[in-house]
Amino acid sequence: MAEPLRIALAGLGTVGAGVIRLLETNAALLRARSGREMRIVAVSARERHKDRGVDLSPFAWVDDMAELAARDDVDVVVELVGGSDGPALALARKAIASDKALVTANKAMVAHHGAELAAAAERAGTALKFEAAVAGGIPVVKALREGAAANAIGRIYGILNGTSNYILSTMEATGAGFGETLAEAQRKGFAEADPAFDIEGTDAAHKLAILAAICFGAEVDFAGVTCEGITRVRAEDIARADTLGYVVRLIGMADLEAGDDGTTALLQRVRPCLVPKGHPLAHVTGATNAVVAEGNFSGRLLFQGAGAGAGPTASAVVADLIDIARGEIGAPFSIPSAEMAPMPRAEAGHRTGRTYLRFTVADRPGVLAEMTAAMRDAGVSIESLIQQGRQEEGGEVLVAMVAHEGPERNVQHALELLRGSDSFTAPPLSMQILGD
Amino acid sequence: MAEPLRIALAGLGTVGAGVIRLLETNAALLRARSGREMRIVAVSARERHKDRGVDLSPFAWVDDMAELAARDDVDVVVELVGGSDGPALALARKAIASDKALVTANKAMVAHHGAELAAAAERAGTALKFEAAVAGGIPVVKALREGAAANAIGRIYGILNGTSNYILSTMEATGAGFGETLAEAQRKGFAEADPAFDIEGTDAAHKLAILAAICFGAEVDFAGVTCEGITRVRAEDIARADTLGYVVRLIGMADLEAGDDGTTALLQRVRPCLVPKGHPLAHVTGATNAVVAEGNFSGRLLFQGAGAGAGPTASAVVADLIDIARGEIGAPFSIPSAEMAPMPRAEAGHRTGRTYLRFTVADRPGVLAEMTAAMRDAGVSIESLIQQGRQEEGGEVLVAMVAHEGPERNVQHALELLRGSDSFTAPPLSMQILGD
Ligand SMILES: NC(=O)c1ccc[n+]([C@@H]2O[C@H](COP(=O)([O-])OP(=O)(O)OC[C@H]3O[C@@H](n4cnc5c(N)ncnc54)[C@H](OP(=O)(O)O)[C@@H]3O)[C@@H](O)[C@H]2O)c1
Ligand SMILES: NC(=O)c1ccc[n+]([C@@H]2O[C@H](COP(=O)([O-])OP(=O)(O)OC[C@H]3O[C@@H](n4cnc5c(N)ncnc54)[C@H](OP(=O)(O)O)[C@@H]3O)[C@@H](O)[C@H]2O)c1
Repeated sequence: MAEPLRIALAGLGTVGAGVIRLLETNAALLRARSGREMRIVAVSARERHKDRGVDLSPFAWVDDMAELAARDDVDVVVELVGGSDGPALALARKAIASDKALVTANKAMVAHHGAELAAAAERAGTALKFEAAVAGGIPVVKALREGAAANAIGRIYGILNGTSNYILSTMEATGAGFGETLAEAQRKGFAEADPAFDIEGTDAAHKLAILAAICFGAEVDFAGVTCEGITRVRAEDIARADTLGYVVRLIGMADLEAGDDGTTALLQRVRPCLVPKGHPLAHVTGATNAVVAEGNFSGRLLFQGAGAGAGPTASAVVADLIDIARGEIGAPFSIPSAEMAPMPRAEAGHRTGRTYLRFTVADRPGVLAEMTAAMRDAGVSIESLIQQGRQEEGGEVLVAMVAHEGPERNVQHALELLRGSDSFTAPPLSMQILGD
Repeated sequence: MAEPLRIALAGLGTVGAGVIRLLETNAALLRARSGREMRIVAVSARERHKDRGVDLSPFAWVDDMAELAARDDVDVVVELVGGSDGPALALARKAIASDKALVTANKAMVAHHGAELAAAAERAGTALKFEAAVAGGIPVVKALREGAAANAIGRIYGILNGTSNYILSTMEATGAGFGETLAEAQRKGFAEADPAFDIEGTDAAHKLAILAAICFGAEVDFAGVTCEGITRVRAEDIARADTLGYVVRLIGMADLEAGDDGTTALLQRVRPCLVPKGHPLAHVTGATNAVVAEGNFSGRLLFQGAGAGAGPTASAVVADLIDIARGEIGAPFSIPSAEMAPMPRAEAGHRTGRTYLRFTVADRPGVLAEMTAAMRDAGVSIESLIQQGRQEEGGEVLVAMVAHEGPERNVQHALELLRGSDSFTAPPLSMQILGD
């Protein structure tokens, strides 16, 4: 048996404690599969004496986690602290600069600094691995970096945030509103006390930017993700979608666009969409994540599983450790980072699609005429219109429409024409309708 | 850029031609991702002058494919001929013995000779890779060998044969019978002229044996797979299942069993099952494959995609070539083959479950009493019984039952008690009901 793989663990929260438990529980199996013992030598967190439900006594304790990167008895630093910058980034940089392999679950850091860290790791000839940063326990980074690597990927998309999916699928099952469902998700531990990162789409955008970089060979461009969360989705939208044959899901999607001049541009978006009930993503409920990759030879591939949680995330962290123990380290984003260039951002406006539009309007004559006139003036043709159900409190009425396949720009234009109209009791909501 | 990876291709049929097309179409991308050019140097098949829709002129032609293994200008032999033994096996042995890497899509060969070939490859320090042998374009071998490698796998199961799934899901959609649907599948190219391998479950059993070896570290044991195909499933069974909230799918499933004496035994089965409509596998229709792995930390992972076809299978073959080009070769079945021991076969009989039973009986008094008495005598308790619908031609009546959770042995015993009864117009069919 080869030398043990000596591990330093920074961060002993949900994921960190999960990794310790996994390495302990599955030790024999890991030894068999990786050919080496996986040995934690040192750990760090903020509070030394917090009870974490795991025995830390076999490991050296370090107060300043940056010291982990400097230790001679460490081969791999595992960063499970979090935060795009600050101590996590400092540790990551220092670990790589010290020729240590780095494993991280930190999507925020990889989304913001992935290009820099990958370049540094390649220069140092060491590994940078982040399977746990995307879709928790689903080995989707590996699936794209390696399993589907023979393919030009046409589109990558999926359900990348468990909290949002839990909320949307619970609203679907119960008919309850967003606020009420969020509060319950918080009580049950499916949403954080401060849920903004999840429900505003930021967390999904982090993951999407990482996936897009792997699939399209572009430098990670988190700032280029257009992002819209689920906070404005109402119970009524879900009911209307259901009537029309759809469910509502928060979808992150990225694809390429070839310009007339031979340039290639990248479109990255996170937003709630209507998903046809026959689509595999429509069956993804609860905190589950799922990713679809469309390869030019493989066709549509689907990867599904738990998107978060101590166990699943630890499973992904340790998969990276096994790769490192086996000496399989390769380029972090599949192609060497020197070849990953920043890619121009595509304009969404000329993309075409079918769109769901929902207006909440004052219940008075002429409002429908105002809206349909704006559609007509913007060149949006209406496929169906539902103004139904009970009148809402305060004289508010809900009008839902489906616009025919057409340029998204036109829909945006129609909404601009209507902007500021005093007929609305709340800003309109538009959601893209996903194809089959 | 490193040296090209020099490839010899044996077999230029569906998959072989697909590989040539893929290497051509995605050449630039493969160079970027693997860091090397993928260069076919020599090819072989039976008929030199057959039109295969691809240009073979750049490659050396070899009449006797065994010669491919002997060439000095070849790094990897890709075996796409088929057949568990014969020329494919001879080529595989010779390639490995000549220190060449071997990539194959040949599930029959890997299921029968995987242990021998893996041991030889490890001795030679070369790669043996067979991503394409299981579930076509889905990178499930990699997902289990690497992505989920941190987990003890509790169960591995899935839809492993596209032809069978196409037939069952078409019967479900159309209400047509088995024979009629098979004939149509053959016309449409979803079933071979000789469909026995697919519809009798052999093909799924090959794949299951390979997956089980990877998940459980046991020597591949194809002969240990109990196998039952879909030929006896009738339209009426699918209709009854639907009424009860299930669909019928051909499921390959493997898991371990700990004996009282500390031994571990392996249970491997392929058979039609009732799958609850809420289960992800219930939504898998057409020729799609899907694999579920239950890890002790990851939880339930699902991998889904095209199970066959030129493009998807080529995608998997070339993924293996990329691994080899990147120098990532590892143990073929995840743990070194020296540590893979033959594992005793578990007895299915004491497993418990709910069972669907269908009898076709003569329409005469006392038949129901005869059947229910046998159930009682065998200790099978009946949860529901449907004797409904029109009387079949020739006075045949269909009786479907669901037996409560209980030992499978009891159901088998009941069927034995009834064996030979002249009340039956056809042998009874029993199908396991999958949990959620
Ligand atoms: N939780 C999940 O399901 C999940 C899933 C995928 C990815 N991730 C990612 O995994 C990472 C960790 O997540 P988590 O849920 O485990 O977080 P967590 O439970 O909040 O744990 C964070 C850990 O980092 C330590 N820490 C924070 N700031 C520190 C500092 N300045 N110096 C030293 N230690 C510090 C904390 O120490 P104390 O314990 O002493 O306070 C704690 O042990 C994040 O990047 C997250 O995005 C999490
Ligand atoms: N088709 C799929 O979707 C699929 C999916 C997964 C795995 N696979 C596996 O991939 C392998 C190839 O399948 P396939 O569908 O491509 O088969 P195929 O279309 O029948 O092609 C077989 C090829 O092997 C050649 N061949 C057969 N016997 C030979 C011999 N004795 N010497 C030299 N060449 C010989 C044939 O030559 P000629 O063309 O000259 O007759 C033909 O080119 C099989 O192991 C299969 O199980 C196939």
